[in-house]
Amino acid sequence: MEQSTQRSLVSSSDVNGTAVYGNDGVQIGTIDHLMIDKESGRVAYAVMGFGGFLGLGEDHFPVPWGKLRFDTAHNGFVTDLTESEVTGAPDRHDDWRTDRDWERRTHEHYGVPFYWM
Amino acid sequence: MEQSTQRSLVSSSDVNGTAVYGNDGVQIGTIDHLMIDKESGRVAYAVMGFGGFLGLGEDHFPVPWGKLRFDTAHNGFVTDLTESEVTGAPDRHDDWRTDRDWERRTHEHYGVPFYWM
Repeated sequence: MEQSTQRSLVSSSDVNGTAVYGNDGVQIGTIDHLMIDKESGRVAYAVMGFGGFLGLGEDHFPVPWGKLRFDTAHNGFVTDLTESEVTGAPDRHDDWRTDRDWERRTHEHYGVPFYWM
Repeated sequence: MEQSTQRSLVSSSDVNGTAVYGNDGVQIGTIDHLMIDKESGRVAYAVMGFGGFLGLGEDHFPVPWGKLRFDTAHNGFVTDLTESEVTGAPDRHDDWRTDRDWERRTHEHYGVPFYWM
């Protein structure tokens, strides 16, 4: 099961600014920071900036980690995220970090498994 | 299985400097940064500074994430780490991030499950 060539540890302090590419290889945004579930040690969200890509302006959006995959060929993250998925996501409010209902709706919206199960 | 009161998302940019306590509640060090496995989205290591605690000076040591647990009562991380465990750990060399053999020996030394299985 060893896949040493595909392994990739990154420092949490180096994650900021990591590029995220669409399936076509075009960069659609960057990771601003990650949200980590301290209990399980799992990354829950990549809070992404789109910097004008997708017409989304400079705002930041929390995208479930399961929506990204690391691509060793690109040495970066790849996603099939679309603009309408991001703009249509459940509104984030100030308490989103502790709102399991918002988390559930958000994961269902993006069609990815809950990170907490 | 809902445990909303125990949930805790933290920003990767806020992890630096998080306190780590021993089982007796005394702070033994701080998290300098985390090492994240980009493929799985799992935290692999907390790179800790001991700042003179345990007589270890200011050096940083990668401690397997499984050695820490988040304690909601402390609102911080707790560990049963001892000085001899840290000083006796396999030497870290420049390529430790990609050295599965070093990772295996380190996890065995600390008696925690491999994060990659």
